Amino acid sequence: MVIYDISDDRLRYAVASLLRRFGLCRIQRSAFAGVLSGAGRVELEAALRRLLRGRSGYNVQIFLITPGAFEGRVVLSEGYSLGGEGGEDVFV
Amino acid sequence: MVIYDISDDRLRYAVASLLRRFGLCRIQRSAFAGVLSGAGRVELEAALRRLLRGRSGYNVQIFLITPGAFEGRVVLSEGYSLGGEGGEDVFV
Repeated sequence: MVIYDISDDRLRYAVASLLRRFGLCRIQRSAFAGVLSGAGRVELEAALRRLLRGRSGYNVQIFLITPGAFEGRVVLSEGYSLGGEGGEDVFV
Repeated sequence: MVIYDISDDRLRYAVASLLRRFGLCRIQRSAFAGVLSGAGRVELEAALRRLLRGRSGYNVQIFLITPGAFEGRVVLSEGYSLGGEGGEDVFV
């Protein structure tokens, strides 16, 4: 799972796009999750580091959680939509 | 760990304040983490449900992750500050 807080719109979109390319799905406006192999995780972290290099105003956190922890999460949601930010792949 | 996306400012602050009262610390603008007992987790979820009852425009996700998964997270951060939203308790 990756959660991020990025002030620059273009950089934020670029990070979201990168996460999608690695097969992750958006679970909240600034959170993606998905299943990756060990090599995939290494590649993802390297790609994020490349994308963020020389930039500022960001905080990105990568969590390695088990499928059970993910599926067991509690989701409280009402009248929530991701609108233009890629609502199509939300699983909430 | 709790991540949230809440459109209403007052409701968002109320959720952040509730999470703090349960001893969680802000790790990102819309993410808190901390150690809770099983009973504490049940109470936290119940308190969140009460706070959110009848409201709309929110998505709150509660993850039960191990201390190892939390400590092993990768944090990429540069020029990042939480400013007025409680930067004092960020551990990034």
